[in-house]
Amino acid sequence: MQPTRLDDVHVTILAGGSGTRLWPLSRHSQPKQLLPLLGETSLLRQTIERVLPLVPWERIYVLSGPDHAEAIARELPELGPENLFIEPSPRGTAPCLGLAALRLCQRAGEGIMISLHADHVVRNAEAFRAALCASIETAREGYLVTVGIVPDQPETGFGYIQRGELLAQRHGLNVYRLARFVEKPPLDLAQAYVASGEYCWNAGYFTWRLDAILAAFAEFLPEQYAALQTVAGDLAGPTGLAAWQGITPVTIDVGIMERAREAAVVPCDMGWSDVGGFGALYALLPHDEAGNATGGEGRYVPLDGGRNLVLSPRLVATIGLEDLVVIDTEDALLVLPRERAQDVSALVRRLHELGLDRHL
Amino acid sequence: MQPTRLDDVHVTILAGGSGTRLWPLSRHSQPKQLLPLLGETSLLRQTIERVLPLVPWERIYVLSGPDHAEAIARELPELGPENLFIEPSPRGTAPCLGLAALRLCQRAGEGIMISLHADHVVRNAEAFRAALCASIETAREGYLVTVGIVPDQPETGFGYIQRGELLAQRHGLNVYRLARFVEKPPLDLAQAYVASGEYCWNAGYFTWRLDAILAAFAEFLPEQYAALQTVAGDLAGPTGLAAWQGITPVTIDVGIMERAREAAVVPCDMGWSDVGGFGALYALLPHDEAGNATGGEGRYVPLDGGRNLVLSPRLVATIGLEDLVVIDTEDALLVLPRERAQDVSALVRRLHELGLDRHL
Repeated sequence: MQPTRLDDVHVTILAGGSGTRLWPLSRHSQPKQLLPLLGETSLLRQTIERVLPLVPWERIYVLSGPDHAEAIARELPELGPENLFIEPSPRGTAPCLGLAALRLCQRAGEGIMISLHADHVVRNAEAFRAALCASIETAREGYLVTVGIVPDQPETGFGYIQRGELLAQRHGLNVYRLARFVEKPPLDLAQAYVASGEYCWNAGYFTWRLDAILAAFAEFLPEQYAALQTVAGDLAGPTGLAAWQGITPVTIDVGIMERAREAAVVPCDMGWSDVGGFGALYALLPHDEAGNATGGEGRYVPLDGGRNLVLSPRLVATIGLEDLVVIDTEDALLVLPRERAQDVSALVRRLHELGLDRHL
Repeated sequence: MQPTRLDDVHVTILAGGSGTRLWPLSRHSQPKQLLPLLGETSLLRQTIERVLPLVPWERIYVLSGPDHAEAIARELPELGPENLFIEPSPRGTAPCLGLAALRLCQRAGEGIMISLHADHVVRNAEAFRAALCASIETAREGYLVTVGIVPDQPETGFGYIQRGELLAQRHGLNVYRLARFVEKPPLDLAQAYVASGEYCWNAGYFTWRLDAILAAFAEFLPEQYAALQTVAGDLAGPTGLAAWQGITPVTIDVGIMERAREAAVVPCDMGWSDVGGFGALYALLPHDEAGNATGGEGRYVPLDGGRNLVLSPRLVATIGLEDLVVIDTEDALLVLPRERAQDVSALVRRLHELGLDRHL
């Protein structure tokens, strides 16, 4: 097996989001990707450490909004300031990645661009890097490539990707032509997808040649592409800013990937999680013999009961409770049954309605 | 109706206990009676304010151990230091009240002594004072009198008192000869007691003439009585201390009241609670339309669910939880279903076993 060529590979990491599903652990000012949710370091740093065996800091770029720029710079002192790409306002992933591609093109002329998310967990980093290498080699052939996640349950919270014909085997992984993207399916459909073996989860990981992705922008999003060229030509200036503000938001999936004729998918079982809520966090943390998962500086003392998730800096005691989530922070405490974990966002909206934004 | 003679009435308040059923709200260093659990002031101060319309500060005495002496003095600046009776170690209520009776006898020669508890809630203070007045008048006739609580449910956590023949009607209340004391009964027996109308709860409220109670000590607890006389004769000295340490502990119910030939009971419906746990506290606090009871400086935001008790200095949010108790303090957090409120003491023992006494 030839070693994968990596010297022209650039990795961009989308670190702009600030979801609400892990409130009060995550806050607007301290989003999930900046928290040491699992292990000693932030998910963002863990994401970078996962690719460092392939790509050095010099070709790693973090994409975010102005709100988190300072925190990211603090979290990543190794990241050169010119490798922190700040977009002035959210316009969806397509303009964000299109602009990044243009800027990389300005700097490097040509090469491979990988786009990752800053707030995912990958247990099997070796498998992940094998998939990246397979995706790089496939992208060199002109494909827009996505690395998909082999599903282990009929998750209804993710989009799915259906594979087409087998294109190649690389680094022990099958590379398929990408047949289609599917939005978050209802449960019966999700079950059918998983049973078929033809679908994987869409994790939003992409690999492409710079010229290929820019050509796709020119073809499928010509209006946005023209604006992005203006932005790239006047990054800090008023013309660029005005052009950016005028861009119609669109995601890379809808704007580009679903339309691309030459798209490929590399399904990979890499122990992946998007840590999309307290249910996922509970599953990722180690459990004691009663099924309790704990975190934070605090001690947890349960009097019977079990399968609780307790994160606290203080002493927490429970009596006879099961499948409960207790998230205890300095200014806010959240208690809920784990099966209601998907309703945390609704709670956060309620807190906003009540004018409690200082806790969000 | 003749006004009740009150100028020789002394009120002693037992404030020595430090129960564990309200942990982490109550602590060893800050027991229930010193907490503003309901209203702005401590239960101890509320107890005193309840009797102040009858008896002035000069004839109110607080009985406690050395651990809480300082906190009590701080809580009650109006209380003269000579009215704070400190026992060096717990010996049960009989020695404690016997010594208090001896000390009052030393000071006043004769008169009426009332004994109350510092950590009870009485909603109807008028009814309570009427019962005290009835008990005082009955005690003047030589009876050892107890004020009992008319039960509103078959509580198995209290002792019961069976009434005998009607002795008098005073201040709108019936005064009965006391037939017998019953230990905490099983549920079926408790139901029968309540249905009969002949039983009331034993709240541990007593009224007696000083000479009558001391005569009862001499008759029923002669050994303890002799020791108490030694203690009273050398209050701060080594002889007195040694005599106190040698006393066999016994409660006033078992040692005196159950044996007394001339005992009376004044049943009274006074909106009474011993605040004996989070279930009782929940019942005492005001509820919102969802049945939630809250306390502390914190805001409580429930996303459906209800009938929760939430005490916190911080923002607390819950999703879909019912009949839950959340007690949130600076260093410790307790979460339990309200129906497990009686197990808090077991939890506290567990915390002690784990060496977590700094939180107790």
